[in-house]
Amino acid sequence: MTSEARVTLAIDAMGSDEGPDEILEGLVLAVEEAPRSARFVVVGQEDVLGPMIENKPRLKSANVEMRHASEIIAMGEKPIAGIKQKKDSSMARALEMVKENEADALLSCGNTGCLMAGGSIRLRTLDGVERPALCTIWPGRERYFTLLDAGANPHPKPIHVAQNAILGSNYARVALGLVRPRVGLLTIGTEEGKGNELIHETHEMLKSINGSILNYAGLIEGFQIFENIVDVVVCDGFVGNIVLKACESLSKLIGSFLDEELRRNALRKTGALLSKGAFRSLKQRINPEQFGGAPLLGLRKHVIKAHGSSNRRHVCGAIKIALDLVQCDMITQVLADITSANEILRPEASGYSVE
Amino acid sequence: MTSEARVTLAIDAMGSDEGPDEILEGLVLAVEEAPRSARFVVVGQEDVLGPMIENKPRLKSANVEMRHASEIIAMGEKPIAGIKQKKDSSMARALEMVKENEADALLSCGNTGCLMAGGSIRLRTLDGVERPALCTIWPGRERYFTLLDAGANPHPKPIHVAQNAILGSNYARVALGLVRPRVGLLTIGTEEGKGNELIHETHEMLKSINGSILNYAGLIEGFQIFENIVDVVVCDGFVGNIVLKACESLSKLIGSFLDEELRRNALRKTGALLSKGAFRSLKQRINPEQFGGAPLLGLRKHVIKAHGSSNRRHVCGAIKIALDLVQCDMITQVLADITSANEILRPEASGYSVE
Repeated sequence: MTSEARVTLAIDAMGSDEGPDEILEGLVLAVEEAPRSARFVVVGQEDVLGPMIENKPRLKSANVEMRHASEIIAMGEKPIAGIKQKKDSSMARALEMVKENEADALLSCGNTGCLMAGGSIRLRTLDGVERPALCTIWPGRERYFTLLDAGANPHPKPIHVAQNAILGSNYARVALGLVRPRVGLLTIGTEEGKGNELIHETHEMLKSINGSILNYAGLIEGFQIFENIVDVVVCDGFVGNIVLKACESLSKLIGSFLDEELRRNALRKTGALLSKGAFRSLKQRINPEQFGGAPLLGLRKHVIKAHGSSNRRHVCGAIKIALDLVQCDMITQVLADITSANEILRPEASGYSVE
Repeated sequence: MTSEARVTLAIDAMGSDEGPDEILEGLVLAVEEAPRSARFVVVGQEDVLGPMIENKPRLKSANVEMRHASEIIAMGEKPIAGIKQKKDSSMARALEMVKENEADALLSCGNTGCLMAGGSIRLRTLDGVERPALCTIWPGRERYFTLLDAGANPHPKPIHVAQNAILGSNYARVALGLVRPRVGLLTIGTEEGKGNELIHETHEMLKSINGSILNYAGLIEGFQIFENIVDVVVCDGFVGNIVLKACESLSKLIGSFLDEELRRNALRKTGALLSKGAFRSLKQRINPEQFGGAPLLGLRKHVIKAHGSSNRRHVCGAIKIALDLVQCDMITQVLADITSANEILRPEASGYSVE
């Protein structure tokens, strides 16, 4: 795909914690820097979005359109029920757009479970990919790294985890700009024989495709995640989801503790005022705004989930990543890698057609 | 057991990161406050420990003894090989003491894998308990909570995880002073049906023993761990170990980031100096010294693992917890609870004898 090719991003503007205006403000930031070939379709309730767009001169350009959807999927709704019952929701309509090739990518800050269910049910996986995986970007000691699966597939087979390594590796190339990302398999104890059956079988699979398809660095333990020993941490969706949520809430807890301690007396308050720049930088390092989105990888189109509480800068970061994924044509590279890997991992199922 | 009953604690003084002197200094702090009935046997190389004890007048009392062991299990040794090959190691000798009823409890700051393997192989589990579990204490938003299994059993069956709930609940009673600790099962998505087979079956088991045996509060998600919704977080040893290690290293990472940011310019440095008390308190809240040890629960004797890098105050905290566990006779209560639970969970295997 050349840089001249048109790229259309469908944006589910409803159902986030911060409301549609914050998402539209994110789009305002993004359109400033987006290539001229990028087109944005904002999906949601016309009477809500219309006046908001009216008030943002930057969005009244030819590159931004609105598409009406009468329903909203709320944060508390159940994954499959939510997406199946609300056929005229902004999320369902945006999914329909990518399914029908009206858009190349979809961004949503809404209900994660519904987006994962909707992506998996409505969009097909790429040829040869058995299950999609949710991929997240984390801050490490020296640089950022990716972790997947963050919860799309909580009972994977070894082949699913092995394919996730390929998906995550391709994402790290685009999002982190790495040529040959090192991949590690998350386990307990790195001696051969430790861990569980899933780990043992996946480890053997990853060793067998190590080389041109993948740069497999081996097993890593929980305490090594943040040490940048690898660029792609691969685990099953059950472990990944728990680790992600535990670490996110631990960050917040430490932040609250620090805040409480700094307010405890006048001396500490004065000190905190002088060093407030440090706390701002810390927050930005822990929760980097340029990586506001987590892609659901392995589907025929790009689906990006941004956090429900994303601010405009997170939304802008997620939009840029969505455009990059389309521009870099990550899907073609994934297809090539998955086909090569499946020839080794699943010779009995060879003959996958690469469309 | 009355408060007059003699309590003997075997202390593996070798194999820690900080060396035996730091462990002995921890013992100095602990003996100041320990009951007169407490006796301590320090196990390790006589030529190393002898002069150190000579130099600490507080340890030359009648309550502290030394027992020679010529070998040391290093941090890098493999679990089963380490404990089986080094029969005259301080860890193996200390395990032998509790096995032969020469000691009621064992404390080690050495190799975790070897201690877990040695505890499981050398000491039998309590009647009715199928597998031991490593239990850790964590800081929550308002108060401390326990999490288990932190890695003793990475492929548990539902009955193991259900029994862990009972073990952890009893430990929370003693270590956190709670009358009726609330127990939660860690999963992804708290709607019934989410998670995996292990979670579904364990959840049913825990519901069936909820009441007099256990105060089961249901499923919890990763982001709720630190919110003090429950006092005992139960999970399998694979997930628990990864979450524990990831969270420990994330805390350290945030600490380093904060440190770097505060040193970045003169203004920030001045501020940091004024509020240094806040950073000290934060560190203590995140890594509380009074809970320096993690017990390997479910065995016939108390085995406490302290962190390899424990300082003297962590060692002192771990010694106090070890003495408390013996004094409160936690084992008798665990036996009673496990017997009641097994009558419901495993009626086919009834007739467990409570010795």
